[in-house]
Amino acid sequence: MSAPIITLTTDFGSDSPYVAQMKGAMLSINPFARIVDITHSVPAQGIRQAAWVLVDSCHFFPEDTIHVVIVDPGVGSDRGVLLARYDGHEFVCPDNGLLTGIAHGSRAESIFSVQNLKYWRAEVSMTFHGRDVMGPVAAHRSLGVVPREFGPPIEEIVKLRWSTPQVENGEVEGLIEQIDSLGNLISDLPSSLVETLGSPDSVSVRIGSTADIPIVDHYQAATSGSIIALIGSHGRLEIAVVNGEAAQVIGAKFGDAIVVYRR
Amino acid sequence: MSAPIITLTTDFGSDSPYVAQMKGAMLSINPFARIVDITHSVPAQGIRQAAWVLVDSCHFFPEDTIHVVIVDPGVGSDRGVLLARYDGHEFVCPDNGLLTGIAHGSRAESIFSVQNLKYWRAEVSMTFHGRDVMGPVAAHRSLGVVPREFGPPIEEIVKLRWSTPQVENGEVEGLIEQIDSLGNLISDLPSSLVETLGSPDSVSVRIGSTADIPIVDHYQAATSGSIIALIGSHGRLEIAVVNGEAAQVIGAKFGDAIVVYRR
Amino acid sequence: MSAPIITLTTDFGSDSPYVAQMKGAMLSINPFARIVDITHSVPAQGIRQAAWVLVDSCHFFPEDTIHVVIVDPGVGSDRGVLLARYDGHEFVCPDNGLLTGIAHGSRAESIFSVQNLKYWRAEVSMTFHGRDVMGPVAAHRSLGVVPREFGPPIEEIVKLRWSTPQVENGEVEGLIEQIDSLGNLISDLPSSLVETLGSPDSVSVRIGSTADIPIVDHYQAATSGSIIALIGSHGRLEIAVVNGEAAQVIGAKFGDAIVVYRR
Repeated sequence: MSAPIITLTTDFGSDSPYVAQMKGAMLSINPFARIVDITHSVPAQGIRQAAWVLVDSCHFFPEDTIHVVIVDPGVGSDRGVLLARYDGHEFVCPDNGLLTGIAHGSRAESIFSVQNLKYWRAEVSMTFHGRDVMGPVAAHRSLGVVPREFGPPIEEIVKLRWSTPQVENGEVEGLIEQIDSLGNLISDLPSSLVETLGSPDSVSVRIGSTADIPIVDHYQAATSGSIIALIGSHGRLEIAVVNGEAAQVIGAKFGDAIVVYRR
Repeated sequence: MSAPIITLTTDFGSDSPYVAQMKGAMLSINPFARIVDITHSVPAQGIRQAAWVLVDSCHFFPEDTIHVVIVDPGVGSDRGVLLARYDGHEFVCPDNGLLTGIAHGSRAESIFSVQNLKYWRAEVSMTFHGRDVMGPVAAHRSLGVVPREFGPPIEEIVKLRWSTPQVENGEVEGLIEQIDSLGNLISDLPSSLVETLGSPDSVSVRIGSTADIPIVDHYQAATSGSIIALIGSHGRLEIAVVNGEAAQVIGAKFGDAIVVYRR
Repeated sequence: MSAPIITLTTDFGSDSPYVAQMKGAMLSINPFARIVDITHSVPAQGIRQAAWVLVDSCHFFPEDTIHVVIVDPGVGSDRGVLLARYDGHEFVCPDNGLLTGIAHGSRAESIFSVQNLKYWRAEVSMTFHGRDVMGPVAAHRSLGVVPREFGPPIEEIVKLRWSTPQVENGEVEGLIEQIDSLGNLISDLPSSLVETLGSPDSVSVRIGSTADIPIVDHYQAATSGSIIALIGSHGRLEIAVVNGEAAQVIGAKFGDAIVVYRR
């Protein structure tokens, strides 16, 4: 493992000096760390949303990338800190459910409980373990410190409820799990599941009181203002409005149900 | 060409995980790519605005920089993808008018139509060619793959209407082409054209119902709250309010006419 | 000094192309400069706020880091430009008070007035010295050009009023100096001063008409919705709301008084 990349996902807000403090702390340990921001716009304390960001984005990075995830409402309490490896990617984060999506249907290659103070900042605040604990751990790991140095192996991690949508009676129900910055509504329904219902021509989508939404190929496959469904860049079903914002047009929000059905 | 820089300009929104997915895809091809964000806050589908961002920002980067521009409402349709070189800078983007400003008054050194699937991601989504096609092409190009490897040369690219303001009857009319984050109104009138009207002392500026705006040297050259015009950092005429936001004070917007006239 | 890091702090707004222009100008001088954003969300012309960002964030970076700070309402006037060194860190910025916090209680190792045009861009605009003067100076400095090459040494810099809170009659009054993106209210009262009043159990905090705020250990140390005070990651007293936004709940703003008193 040589010169891995370190990614950051947090709820600190875009352009926050807290992010810079984390980077400064990491660069003080490994001045040549290559740090890439995934996003700092996770809603405050949005563990579930951050878990989805990881599912969607991690696997585009090279193997051995170290992903640091700081959505940490329990900082200062007795929640644990993880250094875990899944599918060739490493994760450093609080043990509060952030890895639920990554761990769903995947077996951990290893999980360690981060406890060795040797790899933390000398002065650890009660409120910012991203900068004082987890960032430094990732930076030391990027220098080649082996995982078992950071603490003892453990077997179990904290997990959120994570649904596994199923086809029943010719329809499948999922949830809006993300709304992107263009207002597209992204569900938890993978393309593979949608396809079991039949060809796109033979199925429609319903969300709230809006039904008969067609599944199309791309964002410009209908006239301006049309409500469409498509398999988006996440590999999951999403709802969009041609040249518009679906979240606003439909009035939908995070957690709303979405149904795909045979016409 | 050794270790060029790759810049990104998109309408994905500040701090979007889509940007991170593009970076991950690029770093998976060239782990040492040096990627710099120009902006991800181009208004959604704002091809014209992105074209101006390129005009204003590209030439500050070193020669051989590769500029990737993803404002791509036609993704998934049959629009083309370009790898083009102008004035020592390279551009990878959809062929939808994004290079209009760069190509205005400049001759392409080369233009290729990106078609060789060898340099795309193995799995190409219908909706995200930034990550699956154009990012990877730029990353391969940064490793030294020669341009003709990516597809056949072409002669013509899609261009937007792009005005060439002229002096007539002692006045010149331009358009507000950008509003920056400080609320300054930036026109398409270059300093060279404004100077043909006479010395700054002898001309004024009019926008909407606000006339007699003086041209000054710098942002603090008048009392707080004054409406001023000056040649800004873009090298073009702009309207500002001392210690305030011109867009709000004047009620001006993108596309409004601005007139410079002899007093 | 080998390959130092350069940080950027500005009021250009998150994701501004002006930031990219600065980076381009710097990378054109030192293509291997490692540039890290601290923040570009300093309120427009917020010299005081930027001064606090430096106090809070600089010391987390490695020694010899070069911090470029561009909050420059006087650009184009006759205000000076500084290259200064404090506590092993270097600063390039306009001489308008930005270093007040850094210089408070610390002695400059050196201060130079940036004047040597050799290290500026060939074409210097009247409105953007971040890109045309200060960015290039930092990039040349990162290549090892010695400080005295940039201009003559000077003794004094411009400073803002900067309070030194004192305990009087068993209470201490400070100011809200920052509001972070999570709505936490951060004061100028260091933990060391708060501790002189007695143990956290024996003191309370008052802000506006909200009194009896307890000082706790961490953000989850009270029930959801509670108003709490704690020593935050800045090392200073801050007010938070458990799972909420203190700025909104309390209706507090930048500059409000905050009092710590014995119960």
